[in-house]
Amino acid sequence: MATDSLIGRSVPRIDTPLKATGDAVFTADIKLPRMLHAGVLRSPHAHARILNIDTSRAEKVPGVKAVITHKDTKGVKWGVFRYTRDQLMLPIDRVRYVGEEVAAVAATDLDAALHAAGLIDVDYEVLPAVFDPPSALAEGAPLIHDDFPGNLNVHVHIDVGDVEAGFKESYLVREDTFTSEEESYFMTEPYAVVASYDAHGNLEVWMPNAAPHQKAKALSNALDIPLNKVAVRKCYIGGAFGGRSDVFPGEYIAALLSVKTGRPVKLVYTREENTIATRQGHSMIFTVKTGVDRDGKVIARDMTCYMDGGAYSSTAGIATSVPCQCLEQTYRMPNMRYNGFRVYTNKPVRGMIRVHGRAFAGGVDLQLDMMAEELGIDPVEMRRRNARQTGEVTPTGSKVQSCGLIETIDQAAEAAGWREKYGKLPKWRGIGIGNNSVQTGFPLGIRGGSQAFVKFNEDGGATVISGVVDNGQGNDNMLVQIAAEVFGLPMDEVQLISADTEVTANDPGAYSMQATFTGGNAVRLAAEDARDQIFEIAAEALEANQADLRLKDRMVYVEGAPDKGLPLAKVIRMGLIQNRPVMGKGAFAPRVDHRREWVKNPKGQLSETFSFGTTIVEVEVDPETGRVTVLNAVCSQDCGHAINPAVVEGQFEGGFAMGGQGGMLTEAHRWAGGHCLNPTMADYKLPLSVDMPPITPIIVESEDPTGPFGAKEAGMSVAMSAAQAYAGAIRNATGITFTDFPITPEKIVKGLKEHGLVD
Amino acid sequence: MATDSLIGRSVPRIDTPLKATGDAVFTADIKLPRMLHAGVLRSPHAHARILNIDTSRAEKVPGVKAVITHKDTKGVKWGVFRYTRDQLMLPIDRVRYVGEEVAAVAATDLDAALHAAGLIDVDYEVLPAVFDPPSALAEGAPLIHDDFPGNLNVHVHIDVGDVEAGFKESYLVREDTFTSEEESYFMTEPYAVVASYDAHGNLEVWMPNAAPHQKAKALSNALDIPLNKVAVRKCYIGGAFGGRSDVFPGEYIAALLSVKTGRPVKLVYTREENTIATRQGHSMIFTVKTGVDRDGKVIARDMTCYMDGGAYSSTAGIATSVPCQCLEQTYRMPNMRYNGFRVYTNKPVRGMIRVHGRAFAGGVDLQLDMMAEELGIDPVEMRRRNARQTGEVTPTGSKVQSCGLIETIDQAAEAAGWREKYGKLPKWRGIGIGNNSVQTGFPLGIRGGSQAFVKFNEDGGATVISGVVDNGQGNDNMLVQIAAEVFGLPMDEVQLISADTEVTANDPGAYSMQATFTGGNAVRLAAEDARDQIFEIAAEALEANQADLRLKDRMVYVEGAPDKGLPLAKVIRMGLIQNRPVMGKGAFAPRVDHRREWVKNPKGQLSETFSFGTTIVEVEVDPETGRVTVLNAVCSQDCGHAINPAVVEGQFEGGFAMGGQGGMLTEAHRWAGGHCLNPTMADYKLPLSVDMPPITPIIVESEDPTGPFGAKEAGMSVAMSAAQAYAGAIRNATGITFTDFPITPEKIVKGLKEHGLVD
Repeated sequence: MATDSLIGRSVPRIDTPLKATGDAVFTADIKLPRMLHAGVLRSPHAHARILNIDTSRAEKVPGVKAVITHKDTKGVKWGVFRYTRDQLMLPIDRVRYVGEEVAAVAATDLDAALHAAGLIDVDYEVLPAVFDPPSALAEGAPLIHDDFPGNLNVHVHIDVGDVEAGFKESYLVREDTFTSEEESYFMTEPYAVVASYDAHGNLEVWMPNAAPHQKAKALSNALDIPLNKVAVRKCYIGGAFGGRSDVFPGEYIAALLSVKTGRPVKLVYTREENTIATRQGHSMIFTVKTGVDRDGKVIARDMTCYMDGGAYSSTAGIATSVPCQCLEQTYRMPNMRYNGFRVYTNKPVRGMIRVHGRAFAGGVDLQLDMMAEELGIDPVEMRRRNARQTGEVTPTGSKVQSCGLIETIDQAAEAAGWREKYGKLPKWRGIGIGNNSVQTGFPLGIRGGSQAFVKFNEDGGATVISGVVDNGQGNDNMLVQIAAEVFGLPMDEVQLISADTEVTANDPGAYSMQATFTGGNAVRLAAEDARDQIFEIAAEALEANQADLRLKDRMVYVEGAPDKGLPLAKVIRMGLIQNRPVMGKGAFAPRVDHRREWVKNPKGQLSETFSFGTTIVEVEVDPETGRVTVLNAVCSQDCGHAINPAVVEGQFEGGFAMGGQGGMLTEAHRWAGGHCLNPTMADYKLPLSVDMPPITPIIVESEDPTGPFGAKEAGMSVAMSAAQAYAGAIRNATGITFTDFPITPEKIVKGLKEHGLVD
Repeated sequence: MATDSLIGRSVPRIDTPLKATGDAVFTADIKLPRMLHAGVLRSPHAHARILNIDTSRAEKVPGVKAVITHKDTKGVKWGVFRYTRDQLMLPIDRVRYVGEEVAAVAATDLDAALHAAGLIDVDYEVLPAVFDPPSALAEGAPLIHDDFPGNLNVHVHIDVGDVEAGFKESYLVREDTFTSEEESYFMTEPYAVVASYDAHGNLEVWMPNAAPHQKAKALSNALDIPLNKVAVRKCYIGGAFGGRSDVFPGEYIAALLSVKTGRPVKLVYTREENTIATRQGHSMIFTVKTGVDRDGKVIARDMTCYMDGGAYSSTAGIATSVPCQCLEQTYRMPNMRYNGFRVYTNKPVRGMIRVHGRAFAGGVDLQLDMMAEELGIDPVEMRRRNARQTGEVTPTGSKVQSCGLIETIDQAAEAAGWREKYGKLPKWRGIGIGNNSVQTGFPLGIRGGSQAFVKFNEDGGATVISGVVDNGQGNDNMLVQIAAEVFGLPMDEVQLISADTEVTANDPGAYSMQATFTGGNAVRLAAEDARDQIFEIAAEALEANQADLRLKDRMVYVEGAPDKGLPLAKVIRMGLIQNRPVMGKGAFAPRVDHRREWVKNPKGQLSETFSFGTTIVEVEVDPETGRVTVLNAVCSQDCGHAINPAVVEGQFEGGFAMGGQGGMLTEAHRWAGGHCLNPTMADYKLPLSVDMPPITPIIVESEDPTGPFGAKEAGMSVAMSAAQAYAGAIRNATGITFTDFPITPEKIVKGLKEHGLVD
């Protein structure tokens, strides 16, 4: 790359000005002519039979234009995978968690809608409920879904090599159990939907989402509207973190109300509704048995995980298999067994979340620390010996084409002063390390990869059309930076149209770390196609060889002959006059093994490539209050190649805050009879910017052979490794292995007391 | 074409449902968050110097967010052509017509905006004004633009062959002068603009328009915003008729107010403002001298036309040359001279209008009738002898590649019973014939032709992306009908995205009859490109020859082997899985001679092809009231090939109403000192549907070799020929040659009295 390349430069993000000024239009900001407002009636019971719904009082409220119940739906069950379709748009005869949608109202103003929703009379017969996996799996437990016996939603089973033989062969074997509580995303933007159905049969929908084409497909299927008449529109989005990929009843409710009234309908969730009725992160009970040789190398690992899935499937299959796969990508283990059970309970629906389960992530690394201690091996060395390397194949069959894990470990250890600090810190101080890896380019739910178009205007400016969505992580900027680099244009001269399913071609979505790898590659290819057309026109005019042409500073010039060139705008205009308009297209799909049963029994290439991250934190524990203060943090990631280092570092910070600072110290939901007691920011303890320690970011570039300009993904493997590093550091500081996450001050004080370390 | 082809079928238009239900969002319907409302202060004087503008009182009105005057503009003059740029966004020191924009206000509500606009204090020094071309051209007339001496805006001069020698050679020579008054469009939708400028420098604009990319280019140039940051958005449009192609101060005012306030701004014109401050049709003084041989064949013609252009240039060059070119396309004339003078006056700005000047259109045919009479030739035969034919070249150098004029004449005459009626009708009845021709594929102001993209969704539905705009004439439907035909899909499965300059690639606009020919061809080519990709994928799967494949009824099948086929949706999904997504593109530019000086001195191929139309009307004149009743009307057009006959016939009706019924009988503006006295529908006499006679439509198909499926344009040449037919029929009924158009009842009664035909 030339030194003046845009790639690798921390240019300011293109979405910043509008967010800074407040001009960015988020879904709840949208106003449409004749728009109605929606209110939802939710279940007050964790489990109950619906005997009758009487909407007559609600319909009489002035301003009410429509009331919908299950009678207005086609009774179709929907879900991410065919075999986990278990949720009706609106329930017919049963509610399964407190907060479940029962009916909804559209009215000319919000007050009327909410008032009318409250006047819908529902007769319930309360049923016994279960709130945790052991109770739900117990003999005689109330059955939540008739067609899922034993309340078992999904069982993922992986068995590679000979685990029992491996344990026999091992020098040291340990078995530990770790648990973690439910957590939430707390996106800055609460969920909202605007739906507008017109007399021509077109449905427009705006909502915060991580996969517009997936949302469109789900709405198309459930409402029986062709895909090209369902337009999920671009809007600004205030965070996703795994919690916006899935499909929610809110979308159907808004769409159905719009179909019924023939008017646009806006539905805005309160913060409480966002917490309860979108998605939460699973709680887990995770048992891991590991056998290592004398040198600490893992020979065999057997893992069992019970996940509280709540009342419906959501992304059940992926959520149950991905934690294990992240682990197998990170650390070698020739013999591996995994049994993941996702269990129904009468609690809110659980989906994917950034760390994929703290018990899993934190547990494995904590156990490694314990075994390292028994073997007298330094924890960093223990990890180096087991670290995945380029060219290896994971137990389930994914080849790793680029891997900088050893580098992230070494560079983080060096920057954190591990050698000087580990075992040498004063009392109540500790240091811990975590490592993780995530898939990059992992399409699910949508066939094929990402596609992009490029067009040029006669003044030489370019427009890129891509289905990639930006949830706040900077994808819009990433796409523009890639295209601008190909065109040699300032970023300001590349306009982006994205994430509008009517306009943009297929794209799987900005989840599972594929926006840069998949969508970025499609844009790169489309831009290169357009650039080749520009060179073809210019080569004729300049009487030059097409291969010698370069694009830079709005000029097409001949390499080595800086005087010989044409303004880009002129070449574009020549193309228009000659009826050879510059119109680029590009398509990229990651090379993965597509198998229907993949999520239940993973086998083959999961993702074309993987990213790797290491976090080290140094903490001080206050023995009186249990408060943990992070004194130093180093985040290191092999992101392939950093297209925009400032954005990558921003993702480190966000991932560290969510996976480590919040996830391992404070964030957990409290419950009473299926009621979530802390659904708001006042009660649920999110870390604020003032709580955050200074972070030293280290970008490791393994230059992925397929990624756009070598790039993979930014920040996700840091989020997961942060959870692990916190757990290890607290153990190192206190000498106690806390096995229930988050490790709140209460738990620390209780632990210290139980171990007689404080009075 | 197969008998089950969509082409040639009168399928219901896709835009009908939304228009019928009222769901179609026109510009004035748009609501945006934080949107402000604009009011404009207009000049009360026809010509005055601006001494001072004081906005202080206006700025104090509660709710006012911005007041703009010329100080807020960059002082750039704009216009369609470089050499006619004469209008400032807001005038600095001079106003030139009653109604000219002087300043504008944006406020939180319309009342505040209008109230504040009225409180802007402007000191004027009233200047002498001129209101007609002879006065404006007279020695010592007040000069309207300092850099246009003698108030001459544009002079188009054409001189082909030897006109004087031609007259000498002629058997009969006549010279006549015809005049016509100003007319208006009276689109159903009054003009409106919504502009929204954001902190990222993007400008979104909605307005009724006939050329979104031209509007974007003008805004880009005048506001110095790159083209790819100016998004002229799609909206429903209630009519254009030539009066929405141009750029109006309203667009700049809304945009400037939005830039200044950082909020969306809506500006809605009243009916009066729409009449006075968008565009009107030119008044004309047209002198034509024609020499014919003994058989009535034209040998030479000399024409001089003075057009009242109003205060600014607008589309001056085209408006001044096109009337003559329509004539030379219609009738042969080996020696031809034309002098067209567009003259500035202190009246509203004049632009293109459907008939391009009634004096011109009506005059030439009336004169032909008079000469036919002198020679004893039947008017129909007179026209047949002079009618243009395929393969000929016009005097200015356009080759005519397809022409069905003889057929339109013959079929119209047959249907109208010309032979039985001409010269044999009872007293006060008459029959008249007109012929005309218009350009098809005639791009101006935008480089290049039209471009289109096509994408497919995984359920097999297609989406077409085209810059063509639909002003109400049915272009959206035309594009979908073409694409659906190529794909063998029901129209309902082809979604259209059009006329959004951010999304859609280049397109010249839906003016000068090029939407079907240029834009339709681009869509056809893009669809064919996509179809070829579909066949490539299917050929492999079916082990068939690509050339043998056909698309029909959502299936790809092998010709002659109806059992061997694949569902289209399956082929699309195969493509996605194989990363060969179906993404089509197409570009079409008409073969024309691009010359900068073209409009002033036309030479070369004006348009790739031309359409031809004939109208015959039979009228009865009430000698007491002067009222003209049309008893019978036949409209016949060579439209190349009728993609949708019902739409073509609809255009016949609209063109007949505007060109004939309204244009030749009632429509004219009245003036007092530069004030338009009849700017509303209450005073300006538009024909209503109840006024319309039954029309017999005759579609002649000449199968143009380049047009999409042979198509050219629909209805425009009928509009022009209708004007001529009315003039001829009234002459035939009364024996009087009325030379001032429209021929109102007053004029008829006056004429009859003068000729002693009534008391």
